[in-house]
Amino acid sequence: MANFQRIGLLTQLHHAEVLDTLDHLASFLIGTGREVVVESSVAAKMAEGQFAVEDRETLAGSVDLVIVVGGDGSMLSAARDMVDFDVPLLGVNRGRLGFLTDIHPEEAEQRVARVLAGEYVVSDRFLLRLELSRQGKLLGDGLALNDIVLHPGKSVRMMEFELYIDRQFVYSQRSDGLIVSTPTGSTAYALSAGGPIIHPRLNAMVLVPMNPHTLTSRPIAVDANSDIEIRVGQRNELHPLVTCDGQKDLTSEPGDIIRIYKRDNTLRLIHPVDHNFYEICRSKLGWGSRLDAGKHIER
Amino acid sequence: MANFQRIGLLTQLHHAEVLDTLDHLASFLIGTGREVVVESSVAAKMAEGQFAVEDRETLAGSVDLVIVVGGDGSMLSAARDMVDFDVPLLGVNRGRLGFLTDIHPEEAEQRVARVLAGEYVVSDRFLLRLELSRQGKLLGDGLALNDIVLHPGKSVRMMEFELYIDRQFVYSQRSDGLIVSTPTGSTAYALSAGGPIIHPRLNAMVLVPMNPHTLTSRPIAVDANSDIEIRVGQRNELHPLVTCDGQKDLTSEPGDIIRIYKRDNTLRLIHPVDHNFYEICRSKLGWGSRLDAGKHIER
Amino acid sequence: MANFQRIGLLTQLHHAEVLDTLDHLASFLIGTGREVVVESSVAAKMAEGQFAVEDRETLAGSVDLVIVVGGDGSMLSAARDMVDFDVPLLGVNRGRLGFLTDIHPEEAEQRVARVLAGEYVVSDRFLLRLELSRQGKLLGDGLALNDIVLHPGKSVRMMEFELYIDRQFVYSQRSDGLIVSTPTGSTAYALSAGGPIIHPRLNAMVLVPMNPHTLTSRPIAVDANSDIEIRVGQRNELHPLVTCDGQKDLTSEPGDIIRIYKRDNTLRLIHPVDHNFYEICRSKLGWGSRLDAGKHIER
Amino acid sequence: MANFQRIGLLTQLHHAEVLDTLDHLASFLIGTGREVVVESSVAAKMAEGQFAVEDRETLAGSVDLVIVVGGDGSMLSAARDMVDFDVPLLGVNRGRLGFLTDIHPEEAEQRVARVLAGEYVVSDRFLLRLELSRQGKLLGDGLALNDIVLHPGKSVRMMEFELYIDRQFVYSQRSDGLIVSTPTGSTAYALSAGGPIIHPRLNAMVLVPMNPHTLTSRPIAVDANSDIEIRVGQRNELHPLVTCDGQKDLTSEPGDIIRIYKRDNTLRLIHPVDHNFYEICRSKLGWGSRLDAGKHIER
Repeated sequence: MANFQRIGLLTQLHHAEVLDTLDHLASFLIGTGREVVVESSVAAKMAEGQFAVEDRETLAGSVDLVIVVGGDGSMLSAARDMVDFDVPLLGVNRGRLGFLTDIHPEEAEQRVARVLAGEYVVSDRFLLRLELSRQGKLLGDGLALNDIVLHPGKSVRMMEFELYIDRQFVYSQRSDGLIVSTPTGSTAYALSAGGPIIHPRLNAMVLVPMNPHTLTSRPIAVDANSDIEIRVGQRNELHPLVTCDGQKDLTSEPGDIIRIYKRDNTLRLIHPVDHNFYEICRSKLGWGSRLDAGKHIER
Repeated sequence: MANFQRIGLLTQLHHAEVLDTLDHLASFLIGTGREVVVESSVAAKMAEGQFAVEDRETLAGSVDLVIVVGGDGSMLSAARDMVDFDVPLLGVNRGRLGFLTDIHPEEAEQRVARVLAGEYVVSDRFLLRLELSRQGKLLGDGLALNDIVLHPGKSVRMMEFELYIDRQFVYSQRSDGLIVSTPTGSTAYALSAGGPIIHPRLNAMVLVPMNPHTLTSRPIAVDANSDIEIRVGQRNELHPLVTCDGQKDLTSEPGDIIRIYKRDNTLRLIHPVDHNFYEICRSKLGWGSRLDAGKHIER
Repeated sequence: MANFQRIGLLTQLHHAEVLDTLDHLASFLIGTGREVVVESSVAAKMAEGQFAVEDRETLAGSVDLVIVVGGDGSMLSAARDMVDFDVPLLGVNRGRLGFLTDIHPEEAEQRVARVLAGEYVVSDRFLLRLELSRQGKLLGDGLALNDIVLHPGKSVRMMEFELYIDRQFVYSQRSDGLIVSTPTGSTAYALSAGGPIIHPRLNAMVLVPMNPHTLTSRPIAVDANSDIEIRVGQRNELHPLVTCDGQKDLTSEPGDIIRIYKRDNTLRLIHPVDHNFYEICRSKLGWGSRLDAGKHIER
Repeated sequence: MANFQRIGLLTQLHHAEVLDTLDHLASFLIGTGREVVVESSVAAKMAEGQFAVEDRETLAGSVDLVIVVGGDGSMLSAARDMVDFDVPLLGVNRGRLGFLTDIHPEEAEQRVARVLAGEYVVSDRFLLRLELSRQGKLLGDGLALNDIVLHPGKSVRMMEFELYIDRQFVYSQRSDGLIVSTPTGSTAYALSAGGPIIHPRLNAMVLVPMNPHTLTSRPIAVDANSDIEIRVGQRNELHPLVTCDGQKDLTSEPGDIIRIYKRDNTLRLIHPVDHNFYEICRSKLGWGSRLDAGKHIER
């Protein structure tokens, strides 16, 4: 069990509600004798307090735990920035709960107190690394906790690409692009595009074609240690985008090569002890609860 | 590399074409100095020859290799019967190629010769084990290489059940049933029901709901070492069937418990050295071949 | 505007809650000077009252309005029995609202009073007629408000059939069967099987294949005046069932011919004036409500 | 039966093969005593001949028939340009046949001769009209034979919009946009996005959400005379595109209103007499052909 003494508070959002939650959390943590660290952009908007101010990278290297206040967007951004520093993340959501952020602001203090007392579970999540190359030269790279998405960019026109997995040719495809998703991302965009739910503990990636011209192009789940290569078709009159977690874009050209593979370091996601993946699915997807033998049914 | 000296020839089909292929294969194998073993039901219909006749279980324990002539149905049946005896299987198909049987009868001798010469790859496939219990008592069991399917039996009426994975409650569901599929089965019935393709080397099971009343019930892929438990709803007026590989049925009652888990022993499937999973997908599913930069496209 | 003087009360369910609603409705209607008619099986369980007792067919011919208390199952059954008598139907649901029954029991009196006062809208719904023939001889027939479903019957094994629309050959198919649905049925079983939602006023049928072996077999919407013919494949070792509204089964044999076409008479469904098809969709399917420009979103 | 005396030849493609087909068709038609008209851009690349040269609009008003050589792209463009002039269209495809172009170049002369002799069928197809308004002012419009697509434009980020049909609120949606398709377009992009096939003679539109965040958002088929209104959400940080037939884009802003409705004039599509919609489906989608009672099956 880790000792969380120095704690970073992060967010991407600067709404009143989020700042309010941050203020309360900071006071609470300082009251328990913890050190609190925030970014300067956030500090400027918070109530005064005895927290340290550091840039995100320094913070990442100096804290024992990061608490992210916000939605999945804030969490995805924090995850990519923290993963190299091996610091665990805990999510406090504004509004509806998410797959990544499972503490309500109203119960934040009580829940965080229990985490500080050691009552938590750790869920290791892997990230995907993206490399975009042109004529053998690396042009750009990226990281994603949820998904890396290739899409035509500006236009509704379909794009063409070839897919290789572990150097084996899989198919060429005309479509609106391809989603390469982690288990973490399988309940996000990939699910909307028809992909399966992948349990967080299954070491797999899933490749989900978007609106493929060939109707038999279906989602494929492969070992997460697979090497994915996408070759952007020469005939495209487009400049397809490659996007990490729906947040960071790279622009590709016909002939470019996109390589995607599992990053070595994993992210440690902290959940309250009563966390249950399927319960979140039931809650967010409206799945049926336990059957009651007494109830009558009529179709 | 194994030495395949004693070889069993199996089929479920007794058509003229299949028997013709068996006759040719038997002569060819005997000509190379191998011993050939067949079942008595098949021997009765083959041309005379110097093959041994054994029942399926004795054959399973006495041969170094089994060659199955027929479709996926023959292969599935052989797989379940052979898996306990650790004997590898090679499939020769009649008509169209399958995911399990990837040698054409016309090239059977040449391809088998190369396998006998050691030019082959082995693909380990796991099977699922099924246990059906009523009030704590085991009522029946089964094995499946492709899938175990729960369905309402005689009627179009939906059934109700609860699903548990690793003792965690997942959901209750009203639907036409549930497919629990191996990677091997993911390109068979589960694919028709909307499941993803699972690469044979990914150690996963996929659970595919059939026509669920709740539209958000989606395929779920979990680690193959998971323990699946399905509780047949008390309110069903049905006697749901549980079917292994579409071939063996058990009848359940409301309240029954169906347990599904990965069997320890794996099946060794033999492929010609140039076997390629994605090539079979392309061929059977009509996926696109390599792009030709010279071709013009118009939407 | 019709004058609803003589009113039939129907149900398929004999639960305490349903009987309670029936008793209250009967008292209320009699109190307004209306005549109430029920079936004898229901009368036997209701509180004593001044209602007439008639068999369902006599009732159908003698009343001005039928109020169905129960779920969609009760409504489907009543619709098939009433359609020949040109009597309108109003649905009062137990528990959750449905697409056919849109009055809560708690507000039944108030809502029914408004309908009696002429505040209602009529939604005409067509039914499908089924004819099953063997070697040119009619073996059985049926009616359906929702759907007619062909399925393999007892087994998980796929069936084969040929489909013709307006005497044009469409395809042969190996699948778990075919759903032929009205717009009314498009939000029921056909939706679970992947069919589109058909607005009640579109004069169309939709044919939805169930788990087809050929992945490109997709739902087809055709004019409701089309003539559908399904020829059960000769090679099936099955006795496929043809089921109307999930309630009435006919058993077919290989070679049988199933003809499906729109029935001339339509059913008049009565809705409260504020009835809105899309609102029911939103409520039952969880679709998004009006956007609020002030809210913040984060993906 | 129309008398096709003056015939326009159109294409969007200027490949050698297309020009070759145009040259042959022009010679053939002139040889039968017909007048041939082409656009100047095409005339410049054709072999010399006795054809007239007119701009597309003049041509549209002066000819009795337009023959389009090319793919669906050429046909869609010609359809939008010709529909106001009530001139029928016949399609000659390069390469694979399409749903709109069903004459092979190799048999073009023979097939066209039969059409000129009156052996053809006419298939009336309606087009959709698009109007984009901002604060009550019409900003742009468009026409589509296949589909009108709203999508986020440059980015992979989801957009928000509200949908109204016949002034009734349907839903708000977060998704990658919405396809509004004619029956003609139902076998094109809408099919890739999960929409149903709509028979050309069904007077319907289908609305297909693309990767909706809410999994229960499903394709909806409505009467083609419906009035569709899409309100682009105020919160989008995007400039969504509205695209007609994948060819013409308009750029929208948050708050814009997109209106889509059926155009009065229909397009007359000419097919050879043996044209069969379902045969094209079978050919292009790989549907099963007639069953042969003699064949054996094994699952």
